[in-house]
Amino acid sequence: MASTNSTAEGIARTASSASYILKAVAGSERNAALTAVYEHLQAAKDEIIEANRKDMAAAEEQAVAGKLSRSMIKRLDLSKPGKWEDMLQGILDVRDLEDPVGKVTLATKLDNGLDLYRVTSPIGVLLVIFEARPEVIANITALALKSGNAAILKGGKESTQSFAAIARVVSSALGTTSIPPGAIQLVETREDNNTKIPVMGHADGLCAVYIHEDADEEKAVKVVLDSKTDYPAACNAVETLLVHESISNTVLPKIASALLQAGVSLRCDLASRKALESSGLPTAMKAIIQDATPQDYHTEFLDLTIAVKVVSSLEEAIVHINTHSSGHTDGILTESEEVAERFMNVVDSAGVFWNASTRFADGFRYGFGTEVGISTNKIHARGPVGLEGLMIYKYKLRGNGQGAGDYGSGKKQYLHQKIE
Amino acid sequence: MASTNSTAEGIARTASSASYILKAVAGSERNAALTAVYEHLQAAKDEIIEANRKDMAAAEEQAVAGKLSRSMIKRLDLSKPGKWEDMLQGILDVRDLEDPVGKVTLATKLDNGLDLYRVTSPIGVLLVIFEARPEVIANITALALKSGNAAILKGGKESTQSFAAIARVVSSALGTTSIPPGAIQLVETREDNNTKIPVMGHADGLCAVYIHEDADEEKAVKVVLDSKTDYPAACNAVETLLVHESISNTVLPKIASALLQAGVSLRCDLASRKALESSGLPTAMKAIIQDATPQDYHTEFLDLTIAVKVVSSLEEAIVHINTHSSGHTDGILTESEEVAERFMNVVDSAGVFWNASTRFADGFRYGFGTEVGISTNKIHARGPVGLEGLMIYKYKLRGNGQGAGDYGSGKKQYLHQKIE
Repeated sequence: MASTNSTAEGIARTASSASYILKAVAGSERNAALTAVYEHLQAAKDEIIEANRKDMAAAEEQAVAGKLSRSMIKRLDLSKPGKWEDMLQGILDVRDLEDPVGKVTLATKLDNGLDLYRVTSPIGVLLVIFEARPEVIANITALALKSGNAAILKGGKESTQSFAAIARVVSSALGTTSIPPGAIQLVETREDNNTKIPVMGHADGLCAVYIHEDADEEKAVKVVLDSKTDYPAACNAVETLLVHESISNTVLPKIASALLQAGVSLRCDLASRKALESSGLPTAMKAIIQDATPQDYHTEFLDLTIAVKVVSSLEEAIVHINTHSSGHTDGILTESEEVAERFMNVVDSAGVFWNASTRFADGFRYGFGTEVGISTNKIHARGPVGLEGLMIYKYKLRGNGQGAGDYGSGKKQYLHQKIE
Repeated sequence: MASTNSTAEGIARTASSASYILKAVAGSERNAALTAVYEHLQAAKDEIIEANRKDMAAAEEQAVAGKLSRSMIKRLDLSKPGKWEDMLQGILDVRDLEDPVGKVTLATKLDNGLDLYRVTSPIGVLLVIFEARPEVIANITALALKSGNAAILKGGKESTQSFAAIARVVSSALGTTSIPPGAIQLVETREDNNTKIPVMGHADGLCAVYIHEDADEEKAVKVVLDSKTDYPAACNAVETLLVHESISNTVLPKIASALLQAGVSLRCDLASRKALESSGLPTAMKAIIQDATPQDYHTEFLDLTIAVKVVSSLEEAIVHINTHSSGHTDGILTESEEVAERFMNVVDSAGVFWNASTRFADGFRYGFGTEVGISTNKIHARGPVGLEGLMIYKYKLRGNGQGAGDYGSGKKQYLHQKIE
């Protein structure tokens, strides 16, 4: 990576030059650069973990002073079991994927001797702004190099030491390859960016789960619990629980009990509060139920808090979600395929899940190797905009009550098989 | 279409409701709506042409008063030969294309009983802002309905009468179908739009053509002339001509002569001016050559004016284009495949053309039936952003000196054959 004290313009210029080289080198050279980055990071583990400890210590002080949330500290920690290994393995996984550059996705003979091809090509220079998670540098470096893009990374100030350490290592790794170190730059500048570089903003995650009247109780409890508690600080954690009124006295108390036992605060509308108060829940549990404010249904808590609301129909749930959701991922629990299809077709989010935890919305879990973030973008067209340009896509996940917490080291493994 | 005197919020709400229906109806119902729109427009031709004449008369007055450009008037004219017929035929062409909704573009078994599908889906509500061309309403109506999107159209004030007439007809046509008339709304409000609705802005077209040292002279003259003069008011007309220095005394004067004879003003840098002045061009031609200002290389003239510049290498041409181009369409004239590939890979535009006129950058010519505009967007990802999310695509057109003026009614016809 280039020096971090350059001006914004100098950084952009360096990235642009590097992108001219990246667009032209063969896939094998981009792969070799990824191998070098992997090996250098592996060799520098102690140095990077030490830098990360300094960030953690500083963050701890900030948290004690009430200036930083606990969820931020969790995101910062590189020594969390498996995190370092996953980060490094992700680089090799991405390296071993098929070369995405130069694929022909449309080929039309306009006339004899006049041939049109639509070909995949690097975006050019990515400017990626992200929060505290230091492993993002490795993820983005891997994806950017593999896809022939230069990247400028701007991280949160909480992880300055970790970023700088990783940056030095990536820079020296690229120095041994045909890719210029300026292909991946870290910026700490506070200058405003006024630029034509595409900005990929990691999406807000205001995810909802709706429990339809015919939902399987066991699946509902499991999916909501996993969606909320598997990693509450993540953007794919659920923030809003919608429950059909006909099961507010039956299924809702079961879900509430599981959530409360897991330490989750419930912020309830009047109907859900009444249902829970007249249920068989222990008095101690009833006592800690809170009233929801309208703002709670617009809030990404990123913590062990959930907003709860009773709705009278599938359509009311859909309208609530399309009005309040950030368009990231929203789920339904139902035993009816027809109801699930209606929900998945009309809810306007990037991920629409049936009987599965919102926590599955993740590049690794989808089988992409890793990810640079979750986009809620809805426009993709380039060139003349015809029918294809007016379509976007959504990810539909059809499950059977699975939680993301079921998978991982020592647990179930993903298959990631292509469905023909 | 809904009444045009609603508030921006009311219009958005109506569009949103209509989009819930559009997302759920079958392709056959969307096709039936297109047939109805076609038939109603056909029946109302006289009424619409009369409204268009009023717009033309008003525009003529504005032009005489120097308040409107001649190119704007050309765009406005619905009675230009073939325009009405093309507009109506486009509706049927779009209707007869494959249904773009619900196509599975990725299918992965994450685990047994946990299946992920990426499925094409409507964007939802489109807000389309465009200039004077009234036929755009028909194009967008066709594409929006076929793709299951609601659309809000905001046109230029020059074509108010034409828009209103077409709007009335589309509205009454939809009234006979299962698609609510609110699916396509025309706005004339001057309220600012502060909304989450995706906005598809039609791109600026600052297109360049570069003549490499080994270019075929005849192709170069023909392609530049067609790119500039076939329809100078269009966004895909060429605005900048770059010429390799080694042919500035040979090929450049031939191109300049053809352009000047066609009434094109040349704005030349010092090197191109010197080359032309020492050439065998008639004195009268030399006398009207103008000096270029730096701003001319950033200007979309949309008229019979072109900026000319001599460059010393392919790389200088590429850097000039990547710095000045709007990313719409840029072309190269060369007999070398290697040079052409370098240009097409590294020039960062939606269209990169080899030995073909920039005027081919058009949805109809690409075989899309019609288009709502040309996008220079470079970010398309939705959901977790992995490798595919970091790629964009570009259109590469490989020709043999063709001009768009060779094709059309009574001339050559497009083949639009799929290349296997």
